[in-house]
Amino acid sequence: MTTTMIPSTMNTDLQNERRKASLNSEKFAEWWFNGRAELAKKRELESVIFNDAQLNDDIPISYLSYKESYENAMRKSTRLLYLIKKYYRESDSADASTSPSKSTAINKKDNDEKAKWAFLYKLRSMLGGEIGSGILKQGNPIRLHITMFLPTILGQASEEQKLEWMEKCFDLKIIGTYAQTELGHGTFLRGLETRADYDPSTKQFVLNSPTRTSYKWWPGGLGHTVNYTIVMAQMYVDGKSHGIQPFVIQVRDEETHMPLSGIDIGDIGPKMGLKHVNNGYLGFHNVRIPRTNMLMKNCQVLEDGTVRKAKSSVLVYGGMVFVRVVIVRDASFALIMAGTIAARYSAVRRQSPIESNTPEPQVIDHITQQLKVFPQIAKGIVFKLAADYVWDLYQTTMSSLDEGNLNGLAELHLITCGLKAYTSNASRKGVEILRLACGGHGYMESANFVSIYGTAAASCTYEGETTVMWLQTARYLMKAWGAVIKGEKLAPSVSYLKYAHRETEFKGFTPNQWSVIRALQFTAGNLIKSAYETLEKTKENIESYEVAKNLTGLRLVKAAELHTAAFLADVAFRQIKKQLNSIRNSKEVMSALNQMLDLFLVDMFFEYLSDILKYCQLSGQDVDAMEKRLENNLKLIRPNIIALVDGFDLHDRVLDSTLGSYDGNVYERIFDNAKKNPLNQEPVNSSYVHLKAFMKMSPFMKSNL
Amino acid sequence: MTTTMIPSTMNTDLQNERRKASLNSEKFAEWWFNGRAELAKKRELESVIFNDAQLNDDIPISYLSYKESYENAMRKSTRLLYLIKKYYRESDSADASTSPSKSTAINKKDNDEKAKWAFLYKLRSMLGGEIGSGILKQGNPIRLHITMFLPTILGQASEEQKLEWMEKCFDLKIIGTYAQTELGHGTFLRGLETRADYDPSTKQFVLNSPTRTSYKWWPGGLGHTVNYTIVMAQMYVDGKSHGIQPFVIQVRDEETHMPLSGIDIGDIGPKMGLKHVNNGYLGFHNVRIPRTNMLMKNCQVLEDGTVRKAKSSVLVYGGMVFVRVVIVRDASFALIMAGTIAARYSAVRRQSPIESNTPEPQVIDHITQQLKVFPQIAKGIVFKLAADYVWDLYQTTMSSLDEGNLNGLAELHLITCGLKAYTSNASRKGVEILRLACGGHGYMESANFVSIYGTAAASCTYEGETTVMWLQTARYLMKAWGAVIKGEKLAPSVSYLKYAHRETEFKGFTPNQWSVIRALQFTAGNLIKSAYETLEKTKENIESYEVAKNLTGLRLVKAAELHTAAFLADVAFRQIKKQLNSIRNSKEVMSALNQMLDLFLVDMFFEYLSDILKYCQLSGQDVDAMEKRLENNLKLIRPNIIALVDGFDLHDRVLDSTLGSYDGNVYERIFDNAKKNPLNQEPVNSSYVHLKAFMKMSPFMKSNL
Repeated sequence: MTTTMIPSTMNTDLQNERRKASLNSEKFAEWWFNGRAELAKKRELESVIFNDAQLNDDIPISYLSYKESYENAMRKSTRLLYLIKKYYRESDSADASTSPSKSTAINKKDNDEKAKWAFLYKLRSMLGGEIGSGILKQGNPIRLHITMFLPTILGQASEEQKLEWMEKCFDLKIIGTYAQTELGHGTFLRGLETRADYDPSTKQFVLNSPTRTSYKWWPGGLGHTVNYTIVMAQMYVDGKSHGIQPFVIQVRDEETHMPLSGIDIGDIGPKMGLKHVNNGYLGFHNVRIPRTNMLMKNCQVLEDGTVRKAKSSVLVYGGMVFVRVVIVRDASFALIMAGTIAARYSAVRRQSPIESNTPEPQVIDHITQQLKVFPQIAKGIVFKLAADYVWDLYQTTMSSLDEGNLNGLAELHLITCGLKAYTSNASRKGVEILRLACGGHGYMESANFVSIYGTAAASCTYEGETTVMWLQTARYLMKAWGAVIKGEKLAPSVSYLKYAHRETEFKGFTPNQWSVIRALQFTAGNLIKSAYETLEKTKENIESYEVAKNLTGLRLVKAAELHTAAFLADVAFRQIKKQLNSIRNSKEVMSALNQMLDLFLVDMFFEYLSDILKYCQLSGQDVDAMEKRLENNLKLIRPNIIALVDGFDLHDRVLDSTLGSYDGNVYERIFDNAKKNPLNQEPVNSSYVHLKAFMKMSPFMKSNL
Repeated sequence: MTTTMIPSTMNTDLQNERRKASLNSEKFAEWWFNGRAELAKKRELESVIFNDAQLNDDIPISYLSYKESYENAMRKSTRLLYLIKKYYRESDSADASTSPSKSTAINKKDNDEKAKWAFLYKLRSMLGGEIGSGILKQGNPIRLHITMFLPTILGQASEEQKLEWMEKCFDLKIIGTYAQTELGHGTFLRGLETRADYDPSTKQFVLNSPTRTSYKWWPGGLGHTVNYTIVMAQMYVDGKSHGIQPFVIQVRDEETHMPLSGIDIGDIGPKMGLKHVNNGYLGFHNVRIPRTNMLMKNCQVLEDGTVRKAKSSVLVYGGMVFVRVVIVRDASFALIMAGTIAARYSAVRRQSPIESNTPEPQVIDHITQQLKVFPQIAKGIVFKLAADYVWDLYQTTMSSLDEGNLNGLAELHLITCGLKAYTSNASRKGVEILRLACGGHGYMESANFVSIYGTAAASCTYEGETTVMWLQTARYLMKAWGAVIKGEKLAPSVSYLKYAHRETEFKGFTPNQWSVIRALQFTAGNLIKSAYETLEKTKENIESYEVAKNLTGLRLVKAAELHTAAFLADVAFRQIKKQLNSIRNSKEVMSALNQMLDLFLVDMFFEYLSDILKYCQLSGQDVDAMEKRLENNLKLIRPNIIALVDGFDLHDRVLDSTLGSYDGNVYERIFDNAKKNPLNQEPVNSSYVHLKAFMKMSPFMKSNL
């Protein structure tokens, strides 16, 4: 195999960018990773993982067949988890020898559920973030064990069941996933068809897939990887349904890995992205499991078939909310990955003189290019701040929940639904804008936008499809507007509705950050009001509220989106202002952050301008002033953009991009990648036989098309 | 291999849709394909191609490796061309036996260049449209021979050169492509580095790639397929550059297919889509070709090295304009493909009761779903009408050009730049909206959105990147506004600017089609005016026009986009009104078309509402009325949507979608596809060895992340 040498020198344009920047990347990185110690730890782990010879690919994975690439993913995912474990084991021992008290605290935590959730969040962030992407950019067949299987055991098992399952699940003695979606049923949970009939004579449940559409479809790792899975099924006793319940079901032998009797299981095939996740299907034919394999925290079936339901089913939310918090983080990650690649490539690529007879400038000096690249990076930063905010809120709300306080739950649900929908879509669109900004080369898989996009695109659908999320958000907002009218107390995230209710017009716009947020809130409030009133009016004519809601669907979705935009703008503003006052942060870092916040808000202003103009009386001059502000932001951000993306500290193995590497040797890397192409190892491909025969045939054009 | 039987019955929901529709699909299809005879001919050819056993795949191609899938594409693309040739040969003979006069006419045409262009357009439409997609959905390594190699020979060769090259090129005795873009150079043609130095002593040109960035990169089929290529290179005589000229260069032996000496050639590797096009790279090291291999219609180099340039270089436009016309057609095709899949799946899929305790309705009954699906289909129809319009305009303009009339050329260039940018992007976005509307199953490759998206996404970049197209459009518009001010004559497509110049405010909006078009035109005109004035003002402060233009970049792009939107709206309106008066069309077909036009215009109104509101004084009631109009359109279109997409007459082999087949047996097809997955042919995958070793290892959770 011929490969080209990639020079060890750095591209001179990138050198200049770094030399001239006033922003210190290292200081930005310290802020981004919550301090110098955390940053060092991250780098240490990355160095262990990325220097491991077994985790290298000789041939880029995009050349492999579907089957080969699954096999490659399994080899690497097990190796990756092994190395993570080994690293932490060793660093624990090191800690223990110097600091015995900390070690004791850790051992105590083993039995602590909070520590387990934190463990899951951290492990998930690793696998879904830098390290996971660096090793398994098309996904990890074992990841759902961490994200869905363990959280469900943790959240839905009774105390006895935890004793039985927790240890072997957390120690990965068995590998599981979470099977809810069916071929014919997704969003509407009550429509699931898989059934589990209780048989008191044997004290077993009997699982069946009565129809083709009842087959479980989609769970990651289900195809050939897991030997256990959670199955959500309609639970029947004596032919009477008791709703959807979670069951732990063994699907493969723990030794031989052969599918168990009555189990029809396999891989569903290639997808747009996340190609190596081994998403699977699963059908049951009279599969019997012990009664105690139904997870019984919320609903119990006693030996004789007596069913005892929990008082409240809100606890079921927990796991879903957890995943949605994680998705906000993923959305940020996709944008900073793609943003780093696009910014660096735009600094290296030279194209189209701005003045005739001058050399081609760096593409990043074209203002149209800045407008494509910079706002996406700003979103990446804001979404990370939002993810931090909502993860704190999640932990607080869950703690209150443990103490019996259900107050914050509905609001947390609202916030995570909205943020999930908003950030996943903005991230999907943003990644594609960034790819398109890299022209033809952005279209090559070696640029790595394709896999980033595939992952970002999936997150718009899984764990709550966008429109479904908006309609759930809107349902809460309709209640909230009802409360506003009655003068009732409002949850913090919707308290701005009082202002939209009180004021009949929007006054005093000035082109500053807070004014943009107020305009968004006023617009959102009025859209909510309008949807509410349309709904009420439609209801008068049509009997059913649900039919009315369908007819009002477009307005509800719009209101939910604007509300979430306003909420996000507000959170970003507060989070950054809080940071500005922190003494440990450098002035340059804070100034860069403030510019990015400003750009984020201006960009959002233009995105929703038609709605804003409908409700807020802005003049042409106001809009012009915002356009100037936008141009000015781009100008301020330009000199530091490379230093800023350097500060995300994304390892070249993580970016895995011919266009985005730290040294900027773009063309050499593109070339080197092509030379590894298996097609290029032979001068003449075997398929030439067809072409040769074809060219020798009788004339073509003589026929008349 | 286990496969599932797909039932021969039709899904009952689709049956009902078809029974209840007032629109006759067959009549729509006759309109769509320009008459009953053309439709029958299309179906006959499809039946020949799709019943050919050699063109079937046992395993869906997405399971193959990169190398395997190229080999598969070569086998099928040669077979496909063979069958097309055979079919037309036979139907020619049949025609000839019954109608000798027609046959004579055909033979005469062989020497007619107009017939050759029509032949290319038709063959390109087949390969890029129904038949090509049905057989080679990830592209065809031979297609650039038709789209770029032949047109360049036709347009750039001198008469002697045509005698030498034309026959063997049109008869596919040799296979070529078109190599212009280099690794480091795309948009800016003058920046190309490949050089061709004339050596009068041997009467040869010597080709060299002086740098890494000068390697040719991207041409379809270049990797391992073609044996010839057009190469655009800097032509030098005596060390003096004479600009970019086209050369015909042999790259592989006509018998053995081995790369010739001095030629470094190969495949560039996987991409987001069009995976099997065999895009290649090419580097030269002292490659010598005869002087006469430079195409000399526009510039001649005599034996002694004397250079004679053509009077005008506008003729070079021709080929590029041709390709951009084709892209507008492709944009329509992508939307109607994806629209058909999404509409049918939305009629089969049932989800989320609109009223509690009722069964799950067809997804297509959710208004939010209608708003995702219907406008994309409307765009697909409008873009086809625009493609027809611009193909006529192209032919007319080219004919005048042959008669020495250059008048229409600049306007044709403007129109094709704008439409190329507009339709390619709308198609890319629309396909993705349609995919997302199909939830999780839309993400599976077997739904076929992924390959449609990959093709649509590429068209935003190739043959003129979007922003570059907007800036070219804007350059023309700035000149046009200058002409308006001076009261000069305007080309038809910009004559509305007079109205925007004359009127200071927009009056009398009513929510009808013509009013929307006038509002778009008024807004576009004012944006053009504003960009013009900003440019003039900026120029006063900064010396260079080009620097000023960069600073005004955001406004120029906006103005060009709005202008094109207004133009497209106007063309769609006129094209459909023209059809409405045609007696041969059925009333139902025309009524469906008028609804789609209305939806298209309302959708466009909302897309550009923030711009419209900036310049046109619309009231809140006006906007509300348009919202009602939107809801009303969806309601009118709903009952006929399946009949309408049936009328596009897309064969199941063309759609190649588990979600979109005519019979609606969605779940059976998804299942059947998964059962063909090579991973599913073994109960336990060989990679289990890694997982087994991992699960047996020491506990995981004991470590502290």
